[in-house]
Amino acid sequence: MTDAPSLFAPRDEARAESGTTLMPKFDRDGLVTAIVQDAGSGEILMVAHMNAEALARTIATGEGWFWSRSRKAMWRKGESSGNTLAVRELRIDCDQDAVILKASIAGDGAACHTGYRSCFYRTVPVGAAPTPGLALSFDPAMPRPGAAHGH
Amino acid sequence: MTDAPSLFAPRDEARAESGTTLMPKFDRDGLVTAIVQDAGSGEILMVAHMNAEALARTIATGEGWFWSRSRKAMWRKGESSGNTLAVRELRIDCDQDAVILKASIAGDGAACHTGYRSCFYRTVPVGAAPTPGLALSFDPAMPRPGAAHGH
Repeated sequence: MTDAPSLFAPRDEARAESGTTLMPKFDRDGLVTAIVQDAGSGEILMVAHMNAEALARTIATGEGWFWSRSRKAMWRKGESSGNTLAVRELRIDCDQDAVILKASIAGDGAACHTGYRSCFYRTVPVGAAPTPGLALSFDPAMPRPGAAHGH
Repeated sequence: MTDAPSLFAPRDEARAESGTTLMPKFDRDGLVTAIVQDAGSGEILMVAHMNAEALARTIATGEGWFWSRSRKAMWRKGESSGNTLAVRELRIDCDQDAVILKASIAGDGAACHTGYRSCFYRTVPVGAAPTPGLALSFDPAMPRPGAAHGH
């Protein structure tokens, strides 16, 4: 991989939304938001971040590469669990600061490190002002294929 | 609305992922990521951010409230276009720094300010290393119900 500045075209605000040139809008930490969506069902599996190199590797390989803000390191989804991503389609939004990976997930299919299929295994009640004790509900229908091996 | 610190429970890293208490992990700008997904089709419509008050208002009202990083202001989705959100389900992820609004969108149904139904109206080619001239493709099947009035 070459230096991040040479991987993509420079930003051109006038063309970012209406044009056909990839010119990602990295934030001050050098990241864009990346959403992983099941290519078949449309279920949102996880949200993570990509720096320029992670985005470039994802484009080049069709696998899911991300940047861990907590570990300050690149990671390939599934490198430890085997639950790698096969990107079927990659989309970018209007101002080019977020991407969707429509992907199939290998292995046991758990996208979340907790073992749940999706990281979004809890719901928030809507319709009344929140209080500090607001209770979430676990989705009883959320599969947890990775529970046995605890990744 | 009261001050943000009193809206939600304080963070408790040991319980954030496995517990049933809402304790959002706001970043250093005080924001979480918010994904709007069509409640019917599962299509991802837009990605935005919420501060504590936007999240609280969304929970309280069942509409979509966000924080604009560029304008540094709260906004209610649809306040100018009429394309308000009716949140059918709100989900939060494992570490509580991202939410999904499964919503129905009113008005002409354009979630993107460009007039497209979804902000993700362009695809990125996958399978070869990117170059600075990498061309995006407009999705010819993406509806643009808001094109006529240019919001």
